This record gives sequence, C-alpha cells and structure tokens, in this order.
Amino acid sequence: MSYSDSLSKTLEALGATEGSRMSVVKNGRTYVGTLMPHHEFSAEDVLILKMKSGYNVGIRVTDDTTVEMLEAPAAPVRREEPVETREGLPRLVLIGTGGTIASYVDYRTGAVHPALSTSDMINAVPEIREIANIDATVLFSIFSENMNVENWQRLAEEVAAQINAGADGIIIPHGTDTMGYTAAALSFMLGDVSKPVVLVGAQRSSDRPSSDASSNLMACARFCTGADRAGVYVVMHDTTGDDSFAVHIGSRVRKMHTSRRDAFHSINAAPVAHIDASGAMEVSADGPRVGSAEVVARTGMERACALLQYYPGMDPALFEDVFMRCRGIVISGSGLGHVNSNMIPLIKRACDNGTVVVMTSQCLNGRTNLNVYNTGRDILSAGAITVLDMLPETAYVKLMWVLANTSSVEEAREMMMTPLAGEMSDRRTVDV
Amino acid sequence: MSYSDSLSKTLEALGATEGSRMSVVKNGRTYVGTLMPHHEFSAEDVLILKMKSGYNVGIRVTDDTTVEMLEAPAAPVRREEPVETREGLPRLVLIGTGGTIASYVDYRTGAVHPALSTSDMINAVPEIREIANIDATVLFSIFSENMNVENWQRLAEEVAAQINAGADGIIIPHGTDTMGYTAAALSFMLGDVSKPVVLVGAQRSSDRPSSDASSNLMACARFCTGADRAGVYVVMHDTTGDDSFAVHIGSRVRKMHTSRRDAFHSINAAPVAHIDASGAMEVSADGPRVGSAEVVARTGMERACALLQYYPGMDPALFEDVFMRCRGIVISGSGLGHVNSNMIPLIKRACDNGTVVVMTSQCLNGRTNLNVYNTGRDILSAGAITVLDMLPETAYVKLMWVLANTSSVEEAREMMMTPLAGEMSDRRTVDV
Repeated sequence: MSYSDSLSKTLEALGATEGSRMSVVKNGRTYVGTLMPHHEFSAEDVLILKMKSGYNVGIRVTDDTTVEMLEAPAAPVRREEPVETREGLPRLVLIGTGGTIASYVDYRTGAVHPALSTSDMINAVPEIREIANIDATVLFSIFSENMNVENWQRLAEEVAAQINAGADGIIIPHGTDTMGYTAAALSFMLGDVSKPVVLVGAQRSSDRPSSDASSNLMACARFCTGADRAGVYVVMHDTTGDDSFAVHIGSRVRKMHTSRRDAFHSINAAPVAHIDASGAMEVSADGPRVGSAEVVARTGMERACALLQYYPGMDPALFEDVFMRCRGIVISGSGLGHVNSNMIPLIKRACDNGTVVVMTSQCLNGRTNLNVYNTGRDILSAGAITVLDMLPETAYVKLMWVLANTSSVEEAREMMMTPLAGEMSDRRTVDV
Repeated sequence: MSYSDSLSKTLEALGATEGSRMSVVKNGRTYVGTLMPHHEFSAEDVLILKMKSGYNVGIRVTDDTTVEMLEAPAAPVRREEPVETREGLPRLVLIGTGGTIASYVDYRTGAVHPALSTSDMINAVPEIREIANIDATVLFSIFSENMNVENWQRLAEEVAAQINAGADGIIIPHGTDTMGYTAAALSFMLGDVSKPVVLVGAQRSSDRPSSDASSNLMACARFCTGADRAGVYVVMHDTTGDDSFAVHIGSRVRKMHTSRRDAFHSINAAPVAHIDASGAMEVSADGPRVGSAEVVARTGMERACALLQYYPGMDPALFEDVFMRCRGIVISGSGLGHVNSNMIPLIKRACDNGTVVVMTSQCLNGRTNLNVYNTGRDILSAGAITVLDMLPETAYVKLMWVLANTSSVEEAREMMMTPLAGEMSDRRTVDV
C-alpha cells in the first residue's frame, strides 16, 4: 500500500490490509473507516481511511496515535454486469491503456484495482449506457511515461481494427504524462480516420471525491455520439470546475500543468468543441465529418529521431551523437526558432548527411520564422527547415512518421512543411 | 539592407541607399517615401518606404514596378543632446546588450542604427527624463540567441560596478529570445542585490509604429524609481494593448509566444507589479526592499551542464555523452517529472558518477513530485533530485551557478532544493 516502513509494520502486525475496517485515535478524536492505500498527495506516514461519507481522511501516525483493526475486509462483491445491448444506440469501444484514469476503487471494499476491467469503468459511469452501447478492451495497463513507439503502433492497429469491425467511435483512457504525444502519433498513423478517436485522462484517480475520471469519460461519449466529427482528439476538463470539457485536436494539444484538471491546452488552435455537464455541446463549424471509409493504420515510425531544446551555453560537442546518428532532429529553438551560431555548423553537418533538421519554438505559442534575423537565415542556409506553428512534440512525432513513409529527404522535408493532420497552419494562408 | 539579390541590384544601379527619397509606381499608384531596410516580417522582394505619415508601406517589386530615386539621403542631423542632470532625481543606468529593442531608426533620415548610442534611446523616450537622470552604456550589441555564459558574467559585473558607483537602478535592454535565461543568470549571480535590475525587450523594433520599445522602457523607469523593490526583474507588456505592463521575477519568467508583445509570462508565481500607461503602479506586498549594501557579483558558472527534454522513444544511447561528460543535467520530464524506465539506468550511472541530475516538468506550470508513482520513486532511487515548481530553464542556469559555488555534490543538491532567488516555492510551505 506504499506506506512508510514503520507504518507498514504496524499494519502488518494488526493483520490489516486494504479494505480492513479500522479505528484510529489521535488527539482525543476517533476515526472509523476503511483502510485505503497510501494517498498519492500525502506523506507516507499518513494513514488514509475512507469514511462513511465517501471522503478520505489522512491521519499522521505518530507515537501518540492508536491504530486498531475492527474487521477484516469484506470479500469483494463484484459482479460482471450482464451487458445489455440497446437497439439504435451507437457502439463505442473503450480501449484501455492505463494511467490514473484506469485506477478504479471498489467503494464497498476500499480495494484499488489498478487496471479497469471490461465493466469496471462503464459501471462507474452508468449514464453512459443511455447514449451508447459500450464495449471495452484492455490493450495494456502502463503509466504513460512508459508509453513507447511500439505501444503507439499497437494502439493504432487496435483502433483501426475496432472501427473496421463496426465501432462508431473509440475512447482511449490514457495516462496524462504523454497523452499529447500519443494523440499526435495516432493523428498521423490513422490519417483521415472516418470516426472519432478520443483520448481521455484523469488528473485525479477514481478513489478521490475530486476525481475527474467519470465526468471526462461521459464528455467523451457525448462528443463521440453527438458531434459528427471524425479524427483524433483529446477530451479533458476545460476549467478547474466540474462542468466544462474541451475537445482538443490531437496534434495541437499539450499538457501545460502537472496537476490541475484543466491541464491540457490547445496550442495555436482553438478547441474543436466545448461540452458542459448537462451535455450541451458547442462544436466548431470546420472539421472532418464522420464517414464510413475503412481505416488503414500506417504505423511505420523511424526510431532514429530526437527532440532537443536549445539553451544558451549548449555545447555542440555533447550532441555529436544525436546529430550524427539520427535521421531526424527537432530543435525547439528560442524565439522565432533560433539557436546560438556555434550550433549551426553541427546542424549543417547533419543536413549534409541527409538528416532532416526541423526548427520549432520553445515559446510553444506563435510561429517560427527564420527569415527575420541573420541567425535564422544562417540556420536555413545550413539546411534546416521550419514548421510554422507546429508544437515541438508534434513535430518530433510527425518526423518519425514521415521518415518511415518516404526514403527521399526532399519529400520528407516537403511533408514536414505540409499540414497532414491539422498540426500546423498552411503556409499559403499565413504568409504576409 | 537585406533585400533580395535582384532588388539590391536595382537599388544599387539607382545609387539608392537607406534614407534615399524614392518614388515607386505600381498598378497605377505612386508611392513616395524614404527607403528603409528590408522589413523583418516581409519577403525580400518587398521594398519598404517610410511615408510622410510615419508608417511604412511594402511594395512587392515585380516586372511591372517602376522604381526611381528622387533624392540622396539627407546628412544625418543627429545631435548628442547635452545631458542635463536634474537635482533630486534618482540615477538610472541603461546597459545596452542588443536585440530588437536596441534597433533605433532616425525618422528624419530613415537610417537604422543597429545599436543604441548613449542618447539615442533616451531621446526616443523624452518623458523618462522627468522621473530620472539616465546614463547609458553599450556593453555589447548582439541578438540574444547568441548570448552566452561569458555575456552573462560580463553583464553581472557591469551591473554590480554601476550600482556600487551610485546607480539607483539598472535597465538592461535585451533581445527577447533568451531574456528569461539571462534574467535567471543575473538573479543568482547578483544574489541579494540592493537595487532594482530590470531587463526589458521589445517584440517590435523602433521603426514600426507598433513598437513596444519606448513604452516598455518608460515602464522600467517607473518601476525602478517608484516601486521600492530590489532584485532582478523583467518588464514587458502585460496585454496586447498599449497600456499595461507586468514586472516579472527574473527567475520565474518565460517567453511564451514567438511574436506577441505580451509574450512574457510569470510561471508558478504572480508578477511583482502591474503598471499602466499613466504610470499607476500596483506592487505586491512582499519582496526585497531597496537598500544600500554593496553588490558582490558571484559570476562563476560550471559549463559542463545540459538541459534535456524527455520524450517517448528517447534513446539513452544517444545521450551517453551528455550524461557521462556533464557535472549537472536538468531534465524536463513528463507530468510530475518522469522519464521512461529505460532512461533510469543512465540517470543512475550519472548520479553514481557525482553528476547532479535534476528533474523538472515540461508542463512548466505546477510542481514536480516524484513520490506519487513508481516511476518517480525509481528516479529518486537512481539519485536524481526534484525542484518543485522551478522552471526547467531556471533550473539549468541555477545548476551551472551552484556547481561553480560548491565542490560538494551533497551541498549542490541541497542548494538546488533551496530557494535562493525567488525561483521556487519553499518545500516547507508546499508539503501537504
């Protein structure tokens, strides 16, 4: 349960496990509740009890604290609900990948299930059944900082297979750490996918009263069934409140806060839709409509790519390997897409080598332009390209995909500078 | 003047130079004005004329365009204004470093002076004389993407010398690309500096009617003379309008847009002050007050440091040199400060080697916490440290400074986790 060594020993001695009914006395007050695992935002010597109210309390266990076990955990009473298919409702498929959103607590026992089962997550949001028939499958169960290129590929294949087997929309619960990268990867791999494919995370796990898992899921289902939009999206809370959700273009979204529930922002683009808790939905006028075309997943990715941030004092000698061994490099430069002059010879050597070097901006917002200052023009002369208002992270994912889809450096450069999945503005429309 | 080859040849043949009076006929319209250098946001075949109104027009020179020179440039009529010192006013010193803000156009001749002279910039903002006596010096004139560690050191020494020689405040016009990094460097190098040291940039050069150079400078002077705040700050427009300025803590500010005039944001901290165009100023209650202590610049910086962004698919083999050759590494991890598990052995080898590895978050907003998930705990076990809500860029600059100021790895780690210049929240106040 991840408690401190000393607290773990105390609990072990009592025979207390997750779900045990406990009594804790501290400073003259008695707390009775169900023992929960270590709470993610509290210290390891703080014992967590789930109270009758459903809320958790944390009690720091010190020498003057009395801990007692009242009752062993009840045997889990989990039923696989018979899934009743309702005629006439769209069919959504939930593909589990892991992350905070997939942590599910059985409130009757207090036990935490780290991965969602077919019915767990749907049971947590019963109202979802009123607007769609839901099937669910668990593809993997990993924290998203460990998502890798193989996971993206496997996921894209599964999405394509499910859509081709009749799904009207796909919901992908995902850890938030790298959800933006995965959304970008699916955007390119799935091309002009004919149905909505929506990634969704939670910033608070389901055992917390403040969890955003259920409400985010419900917003996904509403978007998938009511918006008539195809493509890859991310749905998350739009504000710190409970009542507003934003739908972001998968190639334009970035996690901009470590913990707030409205952590995800569209960058250099407006969200495609806003949804409120009542289900009212405002969808932007433009965007691909739902169709019926078969989905082809093009999952090839060139691994020899890297993403670097420029910083003053950056020593080109340290990055020799990156520049000489990669086929593609994205640099988030300063301002309009700059690096210090002493980096330019290394960029030139890489470009001369056939490596595609792409300049983006660490400002994130706005667009690159290497024609303004001398440094920029020198970077262009060295052979680098620039990709307007594309996010550095999206540019990195796109570059891997592009380099797997052409062996021509010229074509790769041209593809990088051409919008393929809503990831950038069109040069023809933004030039002054 | 940076025009295209063909346009340059046309101008040369006419004997036209910057400041020449020109007549251009295109599509039946005649434009008469003063020839300006190539405009930063237009194509190289667009000729720029400054019209009588003061506004620039750009005319694309094609085969059907007639270009004529009417008059050679007037001899520059620039006077070094006799600088009159007014009794009783504070003395500010302006230390020029270069950048867009230091581009100055003499409107009488149209000629561009790439570096500001002692009186140029002050003459551009005559009202500044009413609140302070201004001296100015040009330390260097470079675009800020080329600012390096030596420039930071030289600048910190100059600031200290000027304050110790009696300056009541320092204004540093600076290119915006790396102004945040320089502000962080000065924050640590100048320690508890007893006067205000304010960096200021411009997103539009002074030859554009929309330039923010003068108004930003005036806001600096107001802050330096009216706020009773010591320390290192950045002053920039607070909104896209003309009438609001924000004063950011030097170690908490980041350029968040490539071109907007309100590009600079305080991250994980509120601005110290807001100033409006009338000079009304709202200053936060807390913060160091102006004093009279002598300033000691501690300018030592360990160069063997690097800043890396984590991304899915990051190949540890490519970064072997960085991890093995650096004494300090800052990683902007995903979410709460994570990397993929396959990076952890490399982090461990570096830490075992005596390298200080610091985890920050690429979310920028919010704070790291490696105690929540297993990955985080593994990163801590490998020997990395985390620095709460410190910006990755500030952490990199601070790490260079810390490693030059102690030879003890333990002390360096402790210094990194202790607020020294307002760059992070205090662990003791943010723990739950």
